[in-house]
Amino acid sequence: MTAGADFEALRPVGERVEQDLSELAGIRAPESGGWTRTVFSEPYRASRDWVRRRMREAGLDVRLDGAGNVVGVLPGLDPAAPALVTGSHTDTVESGGRFDGVVGVLGALETVRLLRERGIRLRRDLLVVDFLGEESNDFGLSCLGSRALAGELTASDLDRRDAAGMRLGERYAGFGLEPDGVLGSAAAFARHRLAGYVELHVEQGPVLEERGVGLGVVTAIAGIERLLATFRGRADHAGTMPMGDRRDALVAAAEAVLAVRRTACGAPVHGVATTSRLVAEPGSPNVVPAAVRMHAEMRSVDTGWLSSAQLRLAEEIRELAGRSGVDVEIDWSRDNERRPVSADVHEVIAGVAGSLGEPWLPVPSGATHDAVHLARLCPMGMIFVPSRGGRSHCPEEWTDLPDIETGIRVLAGTLLRLDQPRDTL
Amino acid sequence: MTAGADFEALRPVGERVEQDLSELAGIRAPESGGWTRTVFSEPYRASRDWVRRRMREAGLDVRLDGAGNVVGVLPGLDPAAPALVTGSHTDTVESGGRFDGVVGVLGALETVRLLRERGIRLRRDLLVVDFLGEESNDFGLSCLGSRALAGELTASDLDRRDAAGMRLGERYAGFGLEPDGVLGSAAAFARHRLAGYVELHVEQGPVLEERGVGLGVVTAIAGIERLLATFRGRADHAGTMPMGDRRDALVAAAEAVLAVRRTACGAPVHGVATTSRLVAEPGSPNVVPAAVRMHAEMRSVDTGWLSSAQLRLAEEIRELAGRSGVDVEIDWSRDNERRPVSADVHEVIAGVAGSLGEPWLPVPSGATHDAVHLARLCPMGMIFVPSRGGRSHCPEEWTDLPDIETGIRVLAGTLLRLDQPRDTL
Repeated sequence: MTAGADFEALRPVGERVEQDLSELAGIRAPESGGWTRTVFSEPYRASRDWVRRRMREAGLDVRLDGAGNVVGVLPGLDPAAPALVTGSHTDTVESGGRFDGVVGVLGALETVRLLRERGIRLRRDLLVVDFLGEESNDFGLSCLGSRALAGELTASDLDRRDAAGMRLGERYAGFGLEPDGVLGSAAAFARHRLAGYVELHVEQGPVLEERGVGLGVVTAIAGIERLLATFRGRADHAGTMPMGDRRDALVAAAEAVLAVRRTACGAPVHGVATTSRLVAEPGSPNVVPAAVRMHAEMRSVDTGWLSSAQLRLAEEIRELAGRSGVDVEIDWSRDNERRPVSADVHEVIAGVAGSLGEPWLPVPSGATHDAVHLARLCPMGMIFVPSRGGRSHCPEEWTDLPDIETGIRVLAGTLLRLDQPRDTL
Repeated sequence: MTAGADFEALRPVGERVEQDLSELAGIRAPESGGWTRTVFSEPYRASRDWVRRRMREAGLDVRLDGAGNVVGVLPGLDPAAPALVTGSHTDTVESGGRFDGVVGVLGALETVRLLRERGIRLRRDLLVVDFLGEESNDFGLSCLGSRALAGELTASDLDRRDAAGMRLGERYAGFGLEPDGVLGSAAAFARHRLAGYVELHVEQGPVLEERGVGLGVVTAIAGIERLLATFRGRADHAGTMPMGDRRDALVAAAEAVLAVRRTACGAPVHGVATTSRLVAEPGSPNVVPAAVRMHAEMRSVDTGWLSSAQLRLAEEIRELAGRSGVDVEIDWSRDNERRPVSADVHEVIAGVAGSLGEPWLPVPSGATHDAVHLARLCPMGMIFVPSRGGRSHCPEEWTDLPDIETGIRVLAGTLLRLDQPRDTL
């Protein structure tokens, strides 16, 4: 059979996917709750070895690229045709779940097995990638592997330090990766001409489940703006300074936490905002807090709203702090820009879902993904499957097997369609 | 001269007091900002040695009691007469100031020198005490020395551990104090019959300065109720969980911080309330906080208001958290009960101030003091001198020398008056 094959016949084998999920879930840090395979850890090293074995068993040519990504290549019939890329990640947050990232890697593996079992040869090379360290880490750099391939990891990033004081470059070396190879990986990867990137992922939110729809076709990946607000009031004796004479930095920060929430609740299209941490100093039980550092973030796929909401929020925080006699310094840093998906790829995914008779919803992605970085290299699209209760980054994370199977069918169909020459899409 | 002497002639020598202040301020932890002599530290050991030398030079019989208090005795003419006690403490908070506690110890020393220079012999023994470790510490037990003398330090308290995991009992031993001696110190001290305790201290608040009055006569020491509130919401992905579906523990805690403040602002007589710390978990930038521990306290000299405010505050915190779908567990612990001063001692202090033509204000003490514990043993009173800007527990802490001199004059006069037989007061 050739790449023109009918994708409707590509039906994943549920037991096989379930077996993969279960084996991979067995590899985790025993001392942590839930599922823990953080980047550069021993359980992560073991899970990547498992992925490499499974890739080889599926008939892929497996290699480790300079950025530390595990790449399995299914060679195509036409060496001159730009390649397709799919995949996701198998690292987890501390005490995370079994599906985030994993579904995209195992779904790609199952797709390769289905293609080979049916004797379907793609025209294009298909690269199945288990990207290194997608989750947030101490270095403040998520998506280490895909970021490097997109040329967005710099030499100075390697000097960032984790909580143990170790440089990122040292962590790479300890994991068997040459820092020079990491920095050179973008140039090496650029030798591939790429036709498109598709990623299957769990939604990590409740929208699909709430709407009773099994499939999401991502419209855009939210931009993320991170806020570090530093409040400076005055340390006073908590027993002797009358309420009206205080400059309490924690009171000002508490007002700001509520302002962050109010701002996102007013988003007309899509917006979320979260304060994750307040650190009050001196923290002594009988001292009025003199200073607070507040860590928050805002996300939206609506760029116009996001930038105006940032301005309004900063103004409101300043005004509220001023009423408490507290100074505030506000630093925004852009974690990533809003990244729209390719209209072409979106259309192909939606078309495949329609052909299969699967209802789908266009959905924004509030979470960031490796796809954000791959989008710098080629047309990108994402397929979402539901998360029970919208839970993610926790042991309760769950996606039903039938939903995963549907996601894999749509992924396989999308890759077959994208395998066609561009003008026949 | 005898104890009936005219106290108006007892004028402290400013230069001598200033010299003492300056020498003691020279003894501090060099690596910390401001003035740091925390309990059981080396600088504290050195400052106590300095106090012992100064006590001996002033003619006192100096000893260390079982609780670790430095006690200088000025023997009276009548061994059968109950003794007078005065003093305070020379330990500081981390990065504290030069006056908190110190003024009471140096004021007592200067009083002794004045009495001896004028040849005044008291009828009663006068005990000048530099109490061990008055400030808050990791063990959650302030006023270690006076607490022990009042029999309020228990064997199980010695098992409390500090941040380094060291038991309080071990810290005593490392400082050369037998834990058995600490526990036995109350019984040993009970052999003294006591006529009264007077403590000179800086106000640590702004009331005297704001009212332009140089002297405060304390009416009562505030009761302190400590609040530990534990908020439990749900960890969700900060990018994907819509605002309306969240159970954000930090939003609930922020509402509680503002409720704490509102509650105290409504106190009709005297009340302060302070949230000193919020610890959010997991604290990860892309996770909605699942749990927050909040440390707060309320103080008042108005017992009725304090207990009803506690109830109202707990109710309000629960209701606000409920609106965010967050559960909250509220634990109150009483740090100390409101402690009124003895009406007799208050009257003597006020009378002395009046005789000296010094304007004074009746003031509550929002801070706790060694006097709280001495009040269990004998009639107690306190004299306050102004703190510039109300600042305390910080390097900016300041009291003008003339105000300290006035405080010492009133202390000396009060001790002379209290030296009289009770029925002649």
